[in-house]
Amino acid sequence: MAVEQEVREKAARARKAARRLAYLSTGVKDRALLSMADSLVKSRDAIMEANEVDVRAGREKGLSRALIDRLLLTPERIEDMAEGLRTVAALPDPVGEVEAMWLRPNGLQVGRMRVPLGVIGMIYEARPNVTVDAAGLCLKAGNAVLLRGGSEAINSNRAITAIIASAAERSGIPAGAIQLIENTDREAVNVMLKLNDLLDVLIPRGGAGLIRTVVQNATVPVIETGVGNCHVYVDEDADLKMARDIVINAKCQRPGVCNAMETLLVHRAVARELLPGLLDDLKDAGVEVRGCEKTREIVSWATPATEEDWATEYLDLILAVKVVESMEEAMDHIYRYGTRHSEAIVTRDYARARRFLQEVDAAAVYVNASTRFTDGYQYGFGAEIGISTQKLHARGPMGLRELTTYKYIVFGDGQIRG
Amino acid sequence: MAVEQEVREKAARARKAARRLAYLSTGVKDRALLSMADSLVKSRDAIMEANEVDVRAGREKGLSRALIDRLLLTPERIEDMAEGLRTVAALPDPVGEVEAMWLRPNGLQVGRMRVPLGVIGMIYEARPNVTVDAAGLCLKAGNAVLLRGGSEAINSNRAITAIIASAAERSGIPAGAIQLIENTDREAVNVMLKLNDLLDVLIPRGGAGLIRTVVQNATVPVIETGVGNCHVYVDEDADLKMARDIVINAKCQRPGVCNAMETLLVHRAVARELLPGLLDDLKDAGVEVRGCEKTREIVSWATPATEEDWATEYLDLILAVKVVESMEEAMDHIYRYGTRHSEAIVTRDYARARRFLQEVDAAAVYVNASTRFTDGYQYGFGAEIGISTQKLHARGPMGLRELTTYKYIVFGDGQIRG
Repeated sequence: MAVEQEVREKAARARKAARRLAYLSTGVKDRALLSMADSLVKSRDAIMEANEVDVRAGREKGLSRALIDRLLLTPERIEDMAEGLRTVAALPDPVGEVEAMWLRPNGLQVGRMRVPLGVIGMIYEARPNVTVDAAGLCLKAGNAVLLRGGSEAINSNRAITAIIASAAERSGIPAGAIQLIENTDREAVNVMLKLNDLLDVLIPRGGAGLIRTVVQNATVPVIETGVGNCHVYVDEDADLKMARDIVINAKCQRPGVCNAMETLLVHRAVARELLPGLLDDLKDAGVEVRGCEKTREIVSWATPATEEDWATEYLDLILAVKVVESMEEAMDHIYRYGTRHSEAIVTRDYARARRFLQEVDAAAVYVNASTRFTDGYQYGFGAEIGISTQKLHARGPMGLRELTTYKYIVFGDGQIRG
Repeated sequence: MAVEQEVREKAARARKAARRLAYLSTGVKDRALLSMADSLVKSRDAIMEANEVDVRAGREKGLSRALIDRLLLTPERIEDMAEGLRTVAALPDPVGEVEAMWLRPNGLQVGRMRVPLGVIGMIYEARPNVTVDAAGLCLKAGNAVLLRGGSEAINSNRAITAIIASAAERSGIPAGAIQLIENTDREAVNVMLKLNDLLDVLIPRGGAGLIRTVVQNATVPVIETGVGNCHVYVDEDADLKMARDIVINAKCQRPGVCNAMETLLVHRAVARELLPGLLDDLKDAGVEVRGCEKTREIVSWATPATEEDWATEYLDLILAVKVVESMEEAMDHIYRYGTRHSEAIVTRDYARARRFLQEVDAAAVYVNASTRFTDGYQYGFGAEIGISTQKLHARGPMGLRELTTYKYIVFGDGQIRG
C-alpha cells in the first residue's frame, strides 16, 4: 500500500498544481526554466555525488558498459542538461494560442485554443537527462509531470528532481508541478497505468519491453514511442553516389537509435553497380551484412538473411539487404515489416518520388535524405519528448505543441439552440 | 473461436482496404457516398423489413419505449441517413492537406500532411443510424471501418451495411472498407479491444457502461466519448432575462444528450431575483428541481440535493441547483464535479468572462450561450462521429479532421546527418 499511497498522493498534488499551471504566464515559466538551469550547474557536485552512487551500484550489478555510459553524468553532461532547459525557455509557448476562430450564422464566435494536457506521467529508463528534459518540456507546455525513472538512476534522479523542483517553486511555479516517484518497486508503474482520475496521459520512453508493458496494461491514454524498423529504398533511377552517402549515414552515424536504417532495399537494375562497393564500405565501417539470395549472388561474403531479419530492429551495426524487382515490391516489404517510423527513397524520378511519399505510411517519409533526420531538433521544434509511433494525437517527433490539447471557447450574446 | 475468426478476418480485410483507401481521390470517395445514399433510399423497404424484425424482438424482450424509438426506422429516418451521406460528400476532404511546410538550414523541406488514421473500430449501441454516419465519415476521411453495433439492431445493421458496402464497392471503393461484425456475442468486442496489429483506433459510442468497458480493457488506442455533467453559472452581473433563456434551453431543449445542463450554479447576489420565477418555469416544463440549502431557503418546494446529485449526469428532466458565494466557488465546483465536457457562464462582466474562459478546463467553454451548442453541426464541421471527452488527439465534437492523423513528408537532395 505504501507504493500506491506515494503515487496517488503525488499525482493528486500534481493535479492540483496543473490547475494553476494551465494559465501561468509564459514569463513566469521561462524564468523558472532559466533558474532551474542555473541551479543544476550550481549543484553540479551534489548531482555527481549522487550519480556516483548509482554508477557504483550499476557496476556491482554488472550492468553493461553501454548502460553505465548512459547512466554516467559528467560536468559537460550536466551543462548540456542546463543548456537544454535554456533552449526550451527560448521556444515559443504554444499555450493560449487560438489557432482558428470563426463566426456561425447565429452570431456565435467559436475558437479553438491550445491548452495544456494537464498531468503527464513519464515512465522511462536509465538516462538521468530524461528527468530534466521531460520536466522542462512539460513545464513550458503548462503541464505537471509525474516522473518515474529507472531504479538504476534513482539517486541521480532524486538529486536532480529536488534541485529543479525547488528552483521552479522559488520562481513561482506551484508546488507539485515536478515530482519523482521515489519508490523503485515496479508496482509504482502499475499504479500509474490505472490512475485515470489523476493522470491525463502516459508517455513511456525506453526499450521495447517497457513500451509493451505500458501499452498492454494502461487504462490511462498512452502515447507510444519507440520502435523503428526503418528502410532506405534505392530506386533504379537513383544517384548512386547520393544513395551510398545516405545508406552509410542512415546505418552508421548512430546505429543505436530508432531512426537508424535496419534494412536496405535495392532495385535490381542498380544492385550490381551499387552493392559491391557499398557493402565493402559498410563492412569496413564494422557493419555485419545479412543479404537475400540475390544480394549474396552479387556479394558472396554477406551472410544469409532470414525472415526474422526483415522484422528486426537491430539498433546495432547490422544491416539486412534485399534486392527488389520494383518500387512496388519495396513498398510491399515496408508495409509488411516496417513499424511506420521513418522510410526513405533515393531516386531522380519525379513520379516515383511522389508516389512513394503518398503511399508509404510512416511518421516520416523521405525523398533523397537520411532517415536519421526524424528528430525534434532536426525538424526545428527545438526539443522533443519522444518520437510517437502511433497515429492518435501525435506522430513522429513530439515537441511542445504535442504536449498540449485544445479547448473550444465560444462567445455568445444569449444564443440558445432552436 | 468462430467469433475471434470473424473479427480477425474482417479486420485484416479492412486493413488491406485501408492501404488503398488512403490515397483514393476525393472524387471517387464522394461519388461512392452519393451512390450509398441513393441505394439506401432505393432499398428502403428491405431496410424497414429488417428493422421490423429488430423492433418486434425488442418489444418481446421488453425494451423501454425510449429504446424502441431509438431503434425504429421510418421512411423519413432513412431519408435523413441518406441526406447525412450527401452532406458528408459535400464537405471538404481533409486528406492530403499539407498544413505547414518549412525549410531547414540544411535545405531539407519538411511538411506536415494530413493522412487517414487507417482502420477504425466503432463500438456502439442501439441506433442503426450510427452505422451509416460512421461509415460515411470514416470513408470520406480515407479510413476503413469495422462496425460493431448493438445486438438489438443486428438485422437493421446487417441490411444497411450490405447495401452501403456494395454501393461503395460498385463506385470503386476497395472491398472490405465498410464491414459489420455480425456475431452478436460480446466476445467480439473483447477481440476488437486487443487487436493492436489490425486496428488503429477504437471509438466507443453509447452508455457509460460501454465506454467504461472499452477504456478499461482496450490495448488499442481509444477515443473516449460521452459523459457530460455540464454546468451553467449565472454570475452576479448576469442579464437575468438572458440567464433564464439559456438555463431553460440548456436543460429542457433535449435533456437526454450529453451537452444538456445538469447543475445550475447561481451567484448569491442574484439568487433571490432569479430563482423563484425561473424554477417555477422549469417546474412547469416538467423539471424536477433539487436544490442546496440556500436554494431551498428561496424556493421551498425544491427537494434537497445530496452530494450524489452534484456528480450525476441525469440525462433527464432533473436539475440540481446550487447558490454560490463567488465565481471562484462556481469554478471550484465545476473542477470537482464536472466531466470536462461543456461549461457556461452568463455575465456582463468583461474580466470575469475572460477569466472563466481561461481557467475552466473543458472541451467547450461558453460565455452567454447554451451548452447545447457543443455539436459538430453547430460548430460548422458538418457532421460528427462523437464528442471526445478525453484530451488526447481530439477534444469536443469530432468531424472529418479528427478522423485523420498526419505524417511528415521530407524533400531532400542528398542530406545526411552530421
